[in-house]
Amino acid sequence: MANESRKFECESLKKLARAIFEKKGLAADKAADVAEVLLAADGLGIASHGIQRIGVYMTGMNCGRIKPTAEIGVVRETPVSAVLDANDGMGQPAAIKAMRMAVDKAKKTGLGIVTVRNSNHFGIGGYYSMMAAKEGLLGVSMTNSEAMVVPTFGCHPMLGTNPIAMTMPASPTWFHFDVSTSVVPAGKIELYKRQGKTLPDGWAVAPDGKVTNDPQVFLDIRKNKTDGGLLPLGGFGMEGGGHKGYAFSMVVELMTAVFSGGNTSNHVREKPNEDKCCHMFQAIDYGIFGDKKEIEAHFSRYMEEIRHSPKAAGQTRICCAGDIEAEVMKKFEASGIPIPDGTLNELIGIAKELGVDCQAILIEKK
Amino acid sequence: MANESRKFECESLKKLARAIFEKKGLAADKAADVAEVLLAADGLGIASHGIQRIGVYMTGMNCGRIKPTAEIGVVRETPVSAVLDANDGMGQPAAIKAMRMAVDKAKKTGLGIVTVRNSNHFGIGGYYSMMAAKEGLLGVSMTNSEAMVVPTFGCHPMLGTNPIAMTMPASPTWFHFDVSTSVVPAGKIELYKRQGKTLPDGWAVAPDGKVTNDPQVFLDIRKNKTDGGLLPLGGFGMEGGGHKGYAFSMVVELMTAVFSGGNTSNHVREKPNEDKCCHMFQAIDYGIFGDKKEIEAHFSRYMEEIRHSPKAAGQTRICCAGDIEAEVMKKFEASGIPIPDGTLNELIGIAKELGVDCQAILIEKK
Repeated sequence: MANESRKFECESLKKLARAIFEKKGLAADKAADVAEVLLAADGLGIASHGIQRIGVYMTGMNCGRIKPTAEIGVVRETPVSAVLDANDGMGQPAAIKAMRMAVDKAKKTGLGIVTVRNSNHFGIGGYYSMMAAKEGLLGVSMTNSEAMVVPTFGCHPMLGTNPIAMTMPASPTWFHFDVSTSVVPAGKIELYKRQGKTLPDGWAVAPDGKVTNDPQVFLDIRKNKTDGGLLPLGGFGMEGGGHKGYAFSMVVELMTAVFSGGNTSNHVREKPNEDKCCHMFQAIDYGIFGDKKEIEAHFSRYMEEIRHSPKAAGQTRICCAGDIEAEVMKKFEASGIPIPDGTLNELIGIAKELGVDCQAILIEKK
Repeated sequence: MANESRKFECESLKKLARAIFEKKGLAADKAADVAEVLLAADGLGIASHGIQRIGVYMTGMNCGRIKPTAEIGVVRETPVSAVLDANDGMGQPAAIKAMRMAVDKAKKTGLGIVTVRNSNHFGIGGYYSMMAAKEGLLGVSMTNSEAMVVPTFGCHPMLGTNPIAMTMPASPTWFHFDVSTSVVPAGKIELYKRQGKTLPDGWAVAPDGKVTNDPQVFLDIRKNKTDGGLLPLGGFGMEGGGHKGYAFSMVVELMTAVFSGGNTSNHVREKPNEDKCCHMFQAIDYGIFGDKKEIEAHFSRYMEEIRHSPKAAGQTRICCAGDIEAEVMKKFEASGIPIPDGTLNELIGIAKELGVDCQAILIEKK
């Protein structure tokens, strides 16, 4: 079979990732940050943002786009806010520092917002919103990214896929989502191509700005850097609310790039070997609104009402945001993280080149 | 013609609205609040939320759903936040008080969030986000409402149309949007019915939870209080991102109802002659992130880049959120507010019954 995979202990994969990034010059704490965020993605079943990304990050460091020894600067700070400069370092350490600051500020004042400029890919936004939730706070994260989304009635990519993630403590599972403000992320189109499927209307436009159903058209746009791209949530034009997705995407640009003094998505990756994307992290200590346990119970009760509300014909389940994620996490905690052979071989190759003993570190889960 | 309308001086319409609400027992300042918000809607061309609403508000006061003499209580307050109780009064005065508090807090600390519970319809959310922008702040407002939106894969309305409004100072026009998190608001379906049009896929579901294209099906659902309703932004299921619109709608429930200790939408209007919806208002003094003029210039420059970016085939214009609204406001400022004869006759009837001399107050724009 082409897609064989073996399962590994999550901690051993983290150790491998840490070792690789330390060999590339990252300080131990920063290498650990990157490893945590990557394996959190794998643990949520988001393999595209998991340990398989190491190859892309290696390329980024080798070409100078990612500066492994960059220091994170504090540009500006108030009791409720800060602006950080990642100085072209890895996105994860800057993002973790930023959310830690937002959490500390929220614990003192009730609210905290920290923005980051001149950064690189930060992995899954949901990791950072969960950081706040682990501290008993509402967490929000946003990031912009290389432009690949067209504005409503446009044909030139001017916006990133601009995901928004939010986590709110609740039981039995947290309210949690981590979604692009485009109708789908780019990876979904690649998946449709591999599966030989045509795209639904409203996902992507060809270079002339008209809707296309051919995933290859989008892949060519990305490869050749021509006009065309993904559509905002709501699809083409205004009939399905595409202007709303476009507005929400602009909110991400405002909160990340404009509020950090960094690059909007149309200027991210503009120059060779530069990324310079921007992030935003927000924490809210909802104790400012009332008793925290009561607030969590209220929201949990509402989610239960929704889960148990009448289903549409042919449907057997209504989920709340975070339900599926909680199940996947539990499953992979028990089974170990599946790593496809292709990814494993790439990791072994990278490790070998850096003098990291992959076999001694990885523990297969039986 | 059936749809004749005459144009009136905006100030004279405000005066009429104030006089009507004062006669119904509202304090002068609260009557003025309601008049301001209603005419702001008319000035933006959102007639559905303008002075024509007075009839609905009269019904609400006559049946006891709206208590005209209710006092607004402050339940809890911190330097960055407050929770208000509207005590079943009109939504507008509570909303204006809440946004004023959020603005004051943001001016002092950088950030302010104020929630409101036990309220009634507050008109257009965009009025309140603009209040903050007029003070040089980023403004956000949200409200929940009677449930008429189904969760993804559900058929029972569990969510309101839950609009989000945001205004950010920029030039030549402010970034401004005020949009439901459902794919369309209910009024859009009524409009399609009047125009004899069928609904696009992904707007509404029949009582069995399957997509319907017949606007009458939705109107019957509303009339008979059966299952069925509007779909979240992104449409049916997950293919077009309906789960994202559903998640954003849940954010509104969290920020409005859960963070005020009030009713989630499935419990709004649950009892006869009660509404008890909830709102949230947020102000951000973006001076905490850098020089305010530079931040405004940065965002304005990005919006100009988008407006001037290449258009899709057959399209002549790319707008930023707020561009159309700014044009409509300018047009109606010059022309006066058009009031259809049907609305005018209803207003004259209401005024007469309350002993208000409509003819002496209204000034027709020639």
